[in-house]
Amino acid sequence: MIKSAFTNVRKKSPIIHNITNYVTANDCANIILSAGASPIMSDEPLEVEEIVAISEALNINIGTLNKNTIEAMLLAGCEANKRNIPIVLDPVGVGASTLRTNTALRLIENIKFSVIRGNSSEIKALILGTNTKSGVDVSDTDKISEDNIVDILQYAKDYSLKTGAVIVITGQTDIVVDGKKTALIKNGTSLMSSITGTGCQLSALIASFIGANENTFFATVSAVCALGLCGEIAKERMSEKDGNASFRTYMIDALYNLTENELIEGANYEIY
Amino acid sequence: MIKSAFTNVRKKSPIIHNITNYVTANDCANIILSAGASPIMSDEPLEVEEIVAISEALNINIGTLNKNTIEAMLLAGCEANKRNIPIVLDPVGVGASTLRTNTALRLIENIKFSVIRGNSSEIKALILGTNTKSGVDVSDTDKISEDNIVDILQYAKDYSLKTGAVIVITGQTDIVVDGKKTALIKNGTSLMSSITGTGCQLSALIASFIGANENTFFATVSAVCALGLCGEIAKERMSEKDGNASFRTYMIDALYNLTENELIEGANYEIY
Amino acid sequence: MIKSAFTNVRKKSPIIHNITNYVTANDCANIILSAGASPIMSDEPLEVEEIVAISEALNINIGTLNKNTIEAMLLAGCEANKRNIPIVLDPVGVGASTLRTNTALRLIENIKFSVIRGNSSEIKALILGTNTKSGVDVSDTDKISEDNIVDILQYAKDYSLKTGAVIVITGQTDIVVDGKKTALIKNGTSLMSSITGTGCQLSALIASFIGANENTFFATVSAVCALGLCGEIAKERMSEKDGNASFRTYMIDALYNLTENELIEGANYEIY
Repeated sequence: MIKSAFTNVRKKSPIIHNITNYVTANDCANIILSAGASPIMSDEPLEVEEIVAISEALNINIGTLNKNTIEAMLLAGCEANKRNIPIVLDPVGVGASTLRTNTALRLIENIKFSVIRGNSSEIKALILGTNTKSGVDVSDTDKISEDNIVDILQYAKDYSLKTGAVIVITGQTDIVVDGKKTALIKNGTSLMSSITGTGCQLSALIASFIGANENTFFATVSAVCALGLCGEIAKERMSEKDGNASFRTYMIDALYNLTENELIEGANYEIY
Repeated sequence: MIKSAFTNVRKKSPIIHNITNYVTANDCANIILSAGASPIMSDEPLEVEEIVAISEALNINIGTLNKNTIEAMLLAGCEANKRNIPIVLDPVGVGASTLRTNTALRLIENIKFSVIRGNSSEIKALILGTNTKSGVDVSDTDKISEDNIVDILQYAKDYSLKTGAVIVITGQTDIVVDGKKTALIKNGTSLMSSITGTGCQLSALIASFIGANENTFFATVSAVCALGLCGEIAKERMSEKDGNASFRTYMIDALYNLTENELIEGANYEIY
Repeated sequence: MIKSAFTNVRKKSPIIHNITNYVTANDCANIILSAGASPIMSDEPLEVEEIVAISEALNINIGTLNKNTIEAMLLAGCEANKRNIPIVLDPVGVGASTLRTNTALRLIENIKFSVIRGNSSEIKALILGTNTKSGVDVSDTDKISEDNIVDILQYAKDYSLKTGAVIVITGQTDIVVDGKKTALIKNGTSLMSSITGTGCQLSALIASFIGANENTFFATVSAVCALGLCGEIAKERMSEKDGNASFRTYMIDALYNLTENELIEGANYEIY
């Protein structure tokens, strides 16, 4: 199912509506294109209901939220729910400000998300509804390790049951959880945190995958494996003078060239 | 004239004012610099009239329009008209929402554009004033082919006569039409639609060319040939591991290195 | 001190709050990451005071200012001052519009900046409080040369004494001035003006350096040397087909790979 989830994106080329930040919008658009889907960015309340109506999935990312785009997120999300269009939430930096925390909670209260993706500091801030001090990166104490993974899996599962969303927590090991199943994914490389927006890209990619597939859980696992694998391929390609900027290019290139067989061979995941 | 239009951009280094989307703004700025012109991005109504007044051309792109930037587009466009500063309109995704359609029509009603550039779905949506379902990409039925090119040329010509603008329809074959002349341009590669914003880049480039040249039609043809040729050069440069992200870099690089002789030798166009 | 200023960024990994333009935000985030710091972009008045409170430095860039972000700049700046968080001002295109000039002057009147960085046209527009006609690039008459450098150093010093900020004027020779000391830096290459946003990147980098160091003057000199040196390294790496887009990638890569010894060996500066 990992394989067909991947192939369906190329076959169906779903339109993905993104309400996202201006820092990584270009990367998100290009990663969506690499996957074979078609991005559209629109964050004006006056049009988002119509834009989402012609889309196969919606990706809401609060990275550079403002009063106008928050309104757009609410309108687009509600319209998507009405039309059974799946939605991803990327609560970038939730916990770093009251506005981010309250906006994320308000979105979750009013909109049914198919997938919520963040690092473990962000997901924790969502669950606890409190502020953190770690900006957009995971705090050291929240990093997923052997010591805390059992706890993290439990709160992720509880939160999935509460929200009805598949919960994705990215870190050294990536976690995908719904109320019943758990996937642990070990693809990826630490280089992915040396560039801005790999998290945003992953959320945009998950939206592309769930826009082309019925099974949200497996589509999400497939997207997480695919991007992590592309990180590995990109790392492998690095030569001596290359740094994070080349890595950014190579990662998008890798997805563009990825075949379904390479995905199956390279995907490193377990489902419980 | 294709040659001198190209060379004049490097000689005169016109300032190009862009009211454009945040997805591809960086690419647009860099392609303008590659051409030898000087970009400035500004979309706040309180300043756009002054910004356009120090510019040699204005590029209006509705890719991520909002209430504030729509107002800026109208103000800057009217001021540019008063000062005889040429303007390009890129009606990104027109037809995808009522707001986009109405905004594009309102802009065309109130502002005289020198050039309007879109894919054939977008230009059709403009002419018919109706909504489409194809997001920011051309729909399959609207793609330029041998079967429909005669019709497309006719409605483009009519629309040019109606608006007074040179109409550019990009696709496998690119069309540049004014009321009298038609150019068919066969430069380019399908890879150009594997990255976001080649359309936006072309509009920014056309603005650079018409900002440095009196003859709008030939300046536009020159810009379309130049970017298409850069697409071909970029494709030629692709190695096995390269994908759309490398292609994006190579295309801007190609324009940076393009000479007027290479343009003349590589330009593949006919004018009727 | 140039060396330790550089190393401290990697050691302390300061959070850098950026209120910046959407054209080069991605480059700014990646250059901050290359340096070893952690970027956060936020420009909504409702949250910037909280965001700056968890940051080690604030970078204010007026490149695509609007009514909402101007308010955010004022709020964040005042809050940063209260908390003794250092602030960089990049008055992009000041002089190109009354709004830019008035906003920059208003920011300087209400906020104590640690560093103000611009090209010599921008710094001149700030000091004189008048408009220019040169967009975001330096005008030919304002370019730093042997003929005018004494005058430029004098007005920069006066302006430093008036504002209490370290003044950075970038050009063929870069100038860093406080009331007492002057640094002349000869790193860099003209290729740096062939891409958009090297100025923005430098301001973001200076913010990273002063966020990790007590001595603002030396931290600033270190950042200016480092980016200039990365420009040289990037230029050296250019092959025949590379152009400005590859240069952009190589410059960020170079900083990612730069060691403190390479910085010390390559830094080309004099302090008076």
